[in-house]
Amino acid sequence: MSGGGVYSLATRGAKDVIDHATPLVVDAVGKALRTARGASFRMTDMGCADGGTSLDMVRRAIGAVRRLAPRLPFEITYVDQPRNDYNALVGIVHGLTRFKSYLDEYPLVFPSFSATSFYRQVVPDGQLDLGFSATAMHWLSRKPCNVSDHVHAVGASGAELSTFAAQAREDWRAILLHRARELRGGGRLVLVNFCRDDEGRYLGNTGGVNMFDRFNENWRGFVDDKVITEREYANMTLPQYYNDVAEFRAPFEDPRDEVHRAGLRLEHLETRVVRCPFAAAFEEHGDAERFADEYVPTIRTWNESTYYAGLSAERPERERREIIARYYRTYRDQVARDPRGHGMDYVHAYMVIRKE
Amino acid sequence: MSGGGVYSLATRGAKDVIDHATPLVVDAVGKALRTARGASFRMTDMGCADGGTSLDMVRRAIGAVRRLAPRLPFEITYVDQPRNDYNALVGIVHGLTRFKSYLDEYPLVFPSFSATSFYRQVVPDGQLDLGFSATAMHWLSRKPCNVSDHVHAVGASGAELSTFAAQAREDWRAILLHRARELRGGGRLVLVNFCRDDEGRYLGNTGGVNMFDRFNENWRGFVDDKVITEREYANMTLPQYYNDVAEFRAPFEDPRDEVHRAGLRLEHLETRVVRCPFAAAFEEHGDAERFADEYVPTIRTWNESTYYAGLSAERPERERREIIARYYRTYRDQVARDPRGHGMDYVHAYMVIRKE
Repeated sequence: MSGGGVYSLATRGAKDVIDHATPLVVDAVGKALRTARGASFRMTDMGCADGGTSLDMVRRAIGAVRRLAPRLPFEITYVDQPRNDYNALVGIVHGLTRFKSYLDEYPLVFPSFSATSFYRQVVPDGQLDLGFSATAMHWLSRKPCNVSDHVHAVGASGAELSTFAAQAREDWRAILLHRARELRGGGRLVLVNFCRDDEGRYLGNTGGVNMFDRFNENWRGFVDDKVITEREYANMTLPQYYNDVAEFRAPFEDPRDEVHRAGLRLEHLETRVVRCPFAAAFEEHGDAERFADEYVPTIRTWNESTYYAGLSAERPERERREIIARYYRTYRDQVARDPRGHGMDYVHAYMVIRKE
Repeated sequence: MSGGGVYSLATRGAKDVIDHATPLVVDAVGKALRTARGASFRMTDMGCADGGTSLDMVRRAIGAVRRLAPRLPFEITYVDQPRNDYNALVGIVHGLTRFKSYLDEYPLVFPSFSATSFYRQVVPDGQLDLGFSATAMHWLSRKPCNVSDHVHAVGASGAELSTFAAQAREDWRAILLHRARELRGGGRLVLVNFCRDDEGRYLGNTGGVNMFDRFNENWRGFVDDKVITEREYANMTLPQYYNDVAEFRAPFEDPRDEVHRAGLRLEHLETRVVRCPFAAAFEEHGDAERFADEYVPTIRTWNESTYYAGLSAERPERERREIIARYYRTYRDQVARDPRGHGMDYVHAYMVIRKE
């Protein structure tokens, strides 16, 4: 298996999710253009990372604008936080990589890149036609507390769960209120966010092994084995929260809510499960070692920094690195030994929101 | 001398140049706002590199907008080519480095980053209030030919000089025509470009050793010493051209010129010499070894890639690297042995251009 192939698997899930959202984007472009129009059509892709998984979606959005407004300039701003890899992002959008960019296919397309997080206003008031985001807004603006007996809010309870839910409630409203200012009347948001669906499913918990519970059991096992301290166990809390459908809907349903008063209306919400590409590939090839070698490193890319930050700063850096390496090795060996039920299926809410 | 200190010297010249241009920028903001106004004030910094040397200028531009239009959003787009280091640029603009950013000083400021070269249109038609560029537009869109007996167009003659001048003429017009489309009526360009002044001075040629002639003598010496071939000597031609004042003025003076017909008018042109910061420091410290160690590596940063590209691809990479290293060592030792007259004084034209 070439590196390129592993890379494709690693991004296939995220791209499948965006591809599912693309018809909503095309429809939103049409509705936005029917209501109002500025000197250019302005779009954002918030939490874009390297931009590779959204290239096709942006291409389709440009095509939709062109059909309705052939000479309207199209401005797309890619948005992520300041420590994102912008060199990789620029390379992909400008066609310096093996990804096929849309830039040579359409005239009057103006890409730009912003390092202003979606917890701040990215575009001036009333200039945005379409705000898009996929698989990004589960990151909270801060970690409100540790989850004392788990690594993620999905395993929290009592006061800790309430604290996380309150932070998520505040953050969801803050995100929406910034977007309400950015959008022109008739503009749309298409947001594809991790969620807990009506059957209680969420990322890595769709019937098989609960991925976050496994993270937690392994990390707790490191306390039992005296690899880490209780405090280090507690500090490893991912600053994430997965809203359920009611939590996503709430700001739009109460006419006194700030979000409702700012003119935002939820036009569409559906939830959908997208299969883990590694687990799907394993069903084909049946090689447990290969599955473990492909699957666990992908997880590592998005949660390693939180584990690392949880370790005591008094430990030498090398010791911290060794603990982290051992943690993923343990997990990898578990998957290789008994791969049944492992996998990180995506569970998302797909939302379309209108600015009145 | 710390790395930080060397870095400051390396950027001091470029910053001095931009600081000299800042009153022109502040004046241009006032004039642009008096004529027309969009939903936001939009500015570009074309050829921004890491953005460090223009931070103070942008801060002053924002202040000038705020005095005249306190609630007008300010959008600044940093522009460079796709292989620029955008991670460094984002870090500096967003205050992740020791440079002091303006972002926490003013509300309603929206920075973004573009990898669209100034040889293309960066901003949609009629939306730009102020286009700025410093020390960037001497890079031609392509190398039109080799200069057979020199490394730079300043040493070209005859047909080769004419070919370079024609490319520069075409490129200067292309740059201006893209800007003419971007600018709203009343908008301004402040362009600070390398030039040959009315006394024949240009970068590294202000009375002492002619820097480009020295580059050329050393490279020619490598042919004599059989380190490189004649063909490799010829291939080392920097794709640059320094317009003289008449060449900068020409597109504005003929009413039939495309640039004039596009509505661009030259309001101001002055030339100015800014002292080489390394040579100035050497006058203080008198340490020739230190001067050579600081001065030559700075030159290397902007011309090494052209030397390297000139070498035969049939040479192993390691051999090419060794030739380049030897070239700069030769130059460094010359400076250390006899530092008199060495230095890279900047010679710029400072222009203000109005869109009718």
